[in-house]
Amino acid sequence: MTYRYQQLEQWLLQGIQEQRWQPGGRLPSIRELCSQKSLSKATVMHALQRLEALGLVEARPKSGYFVTCRPVQTQAPAVPTQIAAPRPVTVSDVLLDIMRRSAAFDLLPTPQAGDLPHSLVTLNRCIGRALRRQKGNDYQYYDEPAGDGALREQIAVHASRRGWSVSPEQLCITSGCQHALFLALMASCERGDVVAVESPGFYGVLQLLAQLGLQGVEVPSSSDQGMDLDAFEQVLTRWKVKACIVSPAFATPSGALMPPAARLRLMALANRHDLVVIEDDIYADTAFGVIPDPLKALDTEDRVILCSSLSKSLSRDLRLGWVSGARWHERIQHLKLVTQLASSRYLQQGVSDFMADGSYATHVRRQRTELRNRRDQLLSALASWPMDIRVSRPEGGLAVWLELPEPVDTLSLYHRALEQGVVITPGPLFSITGQFGNCLRMSFAHPWDNSRLEALARLATLIERIG
Amino acid sequence: MTYRYQQLEQWLLQGIQEQRWQPGGRLPSIRELCSQKSLSKATVMHALQRLEALGLVEARPKSGYFVTCRPVQTQAPAVPTQIAAPRPVTVSDVLLDIMRRSAAFDLLPTPQAGDLPHSLVTLNRCIGRALRRQKGNDYQYYDEPAGDGALREQIAVHASRRGWSVSPEQLCITSGCQHALFLALMASCERGDVVAVESPGFYGVLQLLAQLGLQGVEVPSSSDQGMDLDAFEQVLTRWKVKACIVSPAFATPSGALMPPAARLRLMALANRHDLVVIEDDIYADTAFGVIPDPLKALDTEDRVILCSSLSKSLSRDLRLGWVSGARWHERIQHLKLVTQLASSRYLQQGVSDFMADGSYATHVRRQRTELRNRRDQLLSALASWPMDIRVSRPEGGLAVWLELPEPVDTLSLYHRALEQGVVITPGPLFSITGQFGNCLRMSFAHPWDNSRLEALARLATLIERIG
Repeated sequence: MTYRYQQLEQWLLQGIQEQRWQPGGRLPSIRELCSQKSLSKATVMHALQRLEALGLVEARPKSGYFVTCRPVQTQAPAVPTQIAAPRPVTVSDVLLDIMRRSAAFDLLPTPQAGDLPHSLVTLNRCIGRALRRQKGNDYQYYDEPAGDGALREQIAVHASRRGWSVSPEQLCITSGCQHALFLALMASCERGDVVAVESPGFYGVLQLLAQLGLQGVEVPSSSDQGMDLDAFEQVLTRWKVKACIVSPAFATPSGALMPPAARLRLMALANRHDLVVIEDDIYADTAFGVIPDPLKALDTEDRVILCSSLSKSLSRDLRLGWVSGARWHERIQHLKLVTQLASSRYLQQGVSDFMADGSYATHVRRQRTELRNRRDQLLSALASWPMDIRVSRPEGGLAVWLELPEPVDTLSLYHRALEQGVVITPGPLFSITGQFGNCLRMSFAHPWDNSRLEALARLATLIERIG
Repeated sequence: MTYRYQQLEQWLLQGIQEQRWQPGGRLPSIRELCSQKSLSKATVMHALQRLEALGLVEARPKSGYFVTCRPVQTQAPAVPTQIAAPRPVTVSDVLLDIMRRSAAFDLLPTPQAGDLPHSLVTLNRCIGRALRRQKGNDYQYYDEPAGDGALREQIAVHASRRGWSVSPEQLCITSGCQHALFLALMASCERGDVVAVESPGFYGVLQLLAQLGLQGVEVPSSSDQGMDLDAFEQVLTRWKVKACIVSPAFATPSGALMPPAARLRLMALANRHDLVVIEDDIYADTAFGVIPDPLKALDTEDRVILCSSLSKSLSRDLRLGWVSGARWHERIQHLKLVTQLASSRYLQQGVSDFMADGSYATHVRRQRTELRNRRDQLLSALASWPMDIRVSRPEGGLAVWLELPEPVDTLSLYHRALEQGVVITPGPLFSITGQFGNCLRMSFAHPWDNSRLEALARLATLIERIG
C-alpha cells in the first residue's frame, strides 16, 4: 500500500474499529483531516468516499461524515423445511479441497505479515518456558493418556465459571476439537448408525460421518434458535436415531445461540429417546456477551459428550482440545491411547501456565469486543450491497451465514472468487443433501483492513455480475 | 546416594559403560583405587564385590578385577510352532494398564531428575526459535493436512541415505507412529478383515486390531530372523489375509533384524497374495550398526505403507511421526484431515531445523554407541542370574526379550515387581492368544546406574523365589 489516500483510509478504518468514533458519531471534518494529516482536500475526499462506498461511513449534507449506525437490517436466512431420510454421507473431493482452505476462516487466501498479538506472544513464552523446564529423562516418557493433570485442572476451573462442574478426571486431552468429535463418535456409535446433525451444519462433522460409515439425518437449524426441535421430534419418531451432534453456542455456520428453553427440551428428547448427545462447544469462548453455559450442565443422565478446544478462541496451531465423555469416557480415553498414545507434555504445561496466570481469561475478554466490532463492520458493509441478501447476526463465533439471491451458485462462485484472491465457504459444504446452494459462510475473524474490504467489494461485484 | 562405596560403584559403572576399561580389560587395582579416591580398602572391596554380584566385573585370583567379557551366552528364546486360526482381538484392562506404564521403556517407574542430554537441549532450542518466529496471523491458520513441507523434505533426505527414495509429497505427518499405524489400518482394511501380525508382536498393534474390529492371526517370529516365512506362507494358504504388519528392523519385543533374503521372500508373498504390508519402521534409527534399508525400498507394487516417528530415536514427547501410504496415501491423508485437521506448524518447523543442521544425525550416531553398551551391560548382568534363561541379543532397538523357566508367570511377576519399584513388560502383552506367559521384555533404553542395577537384582531375587 503506497498512496496517501490509502494511508488515511486505513487510519480511519482502524479508528472506527477501535471505536475512537462511536457508531453514529461524527468523523473529524474534511478541513481537520487535511490539516492534521497534511493532505490535500482531494486526497481526504477520496478516502472518505471509498469508506462510504463500503457502507462504513455516511455523508450527511452540511454536517460531514458519520460512522454508519443504521441498525443493520439483517433478515435471517431461510431455514429448510423438508427433512430427508437418513443416508450414508459422501463428500466430493472438491468439497474436501474447499474445506482445507476455508478452515482458516479468512477472506484472504494467505497469512499476513505483521506483529503477533500480545496474548499470543505471552502464550508462546509460556510454552518456551515449559520446554526449558524439561529435565533428566522426561523426554523418554509418554504423557499419561488422559493428558496433563495441571491443564485438565485449568480447564475444569474455566468450566466451573460457566455453571459446569467437572473434575479433571472427567476430562481427556485431545489433538483439537475435531479429534475429540472423532473419538466421541467412534466410542459411542457403530457403522450404519443414524446420527442427527444440524442443517446447515459443520462440514467437519459431516466428513467424520462419511469416514466412519455412519448415516446422517439433517435437522433444520435457524440462525436465531438453532436446531428446530419440532422437526427433531418428528425425526426421532420416524427413524431410530443413535446420536445427535449439536453446537448450542454459536454453531457454525448458523451462528445460533440455542435458547434455554430449547436446551431443556433437547435434553428431554435425548432422555426419552436414549440418545448420545455430542456437544461441539468450540465457539463458546468467542461469545460477545457472557459465555453461555454448556448443554452438558443440564445433563442428568450422563449422556452428553462435550468436545472443545482452543483453536477458535486462542490459536489454531496448538492442536489441543478436550473431551468429557460421560458414560463413554473410559472407552474414549482408551481409544485415544490406542490411536495416538499421548499428547505432548511440555505443550500442555505451557498452555496450562498461560491459563493459570489469567492470561487466557484476559485474552478472551479483549477478543470479545474486537469480534463484536468486526461483526458490526461486516454487517455494515453487507448492508450497502445492492442485491437482496439475508444474513445472520450472531452474538458469538467468527462468521455470518449469508443467503444470496436464488440464481447464485456459491460453489462456482467459490472458484471464481478464489481466482480474484477471495476465499468464501460455499453453502453446500454444510449439508449432506446438497442444500444451501445460494448460501455462504463469511468470516469476521480478522480485523477489517483495506485488503479485506477490497476483497469484500470484489466479491460483491462478482455476485452482482452473476445474479 | 550417600555412601562412599556407592559413589565409587557409580564411578566404576560409568567407566565401564564409557569403555574407559574395555570388556576383558583390567580395572585399576584395589591399592590404586584406595589412593586415587582416598578410600579405605574395605570401601573399595565393597564396591567391587557389588559389581561382581551384578556380573559386570569378575575377580581373577592374584590378578585383580576385570570387566566381564565372556561372550555372553544368549540362547535365543523359543519360537512358537503352532498357529491359531484368525480371531477377533480382545485385550483386558490389566493389559491396558501395563501398556501405559511400560511404554516408558524403563525398569524404574518414574522419570529421573538430572540434566537433559545435550541433543535434547538443542532440539528444544530449535522448537523455541520456531515459536518466536510466528508472526502476523499465522496462529489463525491450520497447517496443511500433509504437514510442514520443510519437515517432509528433511525426512525424505534422511530416507534417501537408507536407499529409499521418497518425495515429500509421498509423506504425511502424523501424531507419532501409533497414529500412523492407526491411519494405515483404517485406510486399508475393513471391520472383520484378517491381519497377520508377528508373534510375539507389538501390543500397540494388537490394541489397534481390537479397536478397529479386525481379526488377528499370529505368525511366529524369532529374535534372529523375524517373521517365520514358512509359517506365514501356510497362513496365507489357509486363510484369506488382507494385511500384514511387520517391523523388519528390530521389532519389539523380538529385536530381530529381518535378513535381506527374507525381505525379498516376504515381498514376493505379498505380491502373490495381494497383501497390504504395513511396515513399522520406528526402531530403524536405533540400529547399533548401519541403519538398515526399509522393506519399503523393495516395494515394486506400491503396497507397503511405511509408518515411523522420532519417539524411540529422539523424544517421546514430540508426538511427531509420518506415514508413506503407497496406493492408500490419499485416503490416509484425508483421514488425518478429518480426524485431526492438522499438526502443529511451529513444532514441525523446530524439528525440521534440528534435522536440517545435522543435529539429528549427530544424535543418532552418538546414541548408537550408548545403546550398544547398555545392551552389553544388561546381557552381562543377566548372564550372572542363577536360573536358566534365554535372551535375545538384538543389534538395535531398546529392549531384550527374555524367556524364564516355565513355572514363572510374568503377569503376576509384573505386579509383584511393581510393588518393589521395578517395571517389566510381561510376555502375554505381546500375543492375542495369551502366549509367552514365562517371557518378558526388558529395556536397556536408559543408562545403567546403581538404582537400575539394584532394580535388576531385586527382580532376579523375586524370580528365583517364584521359580
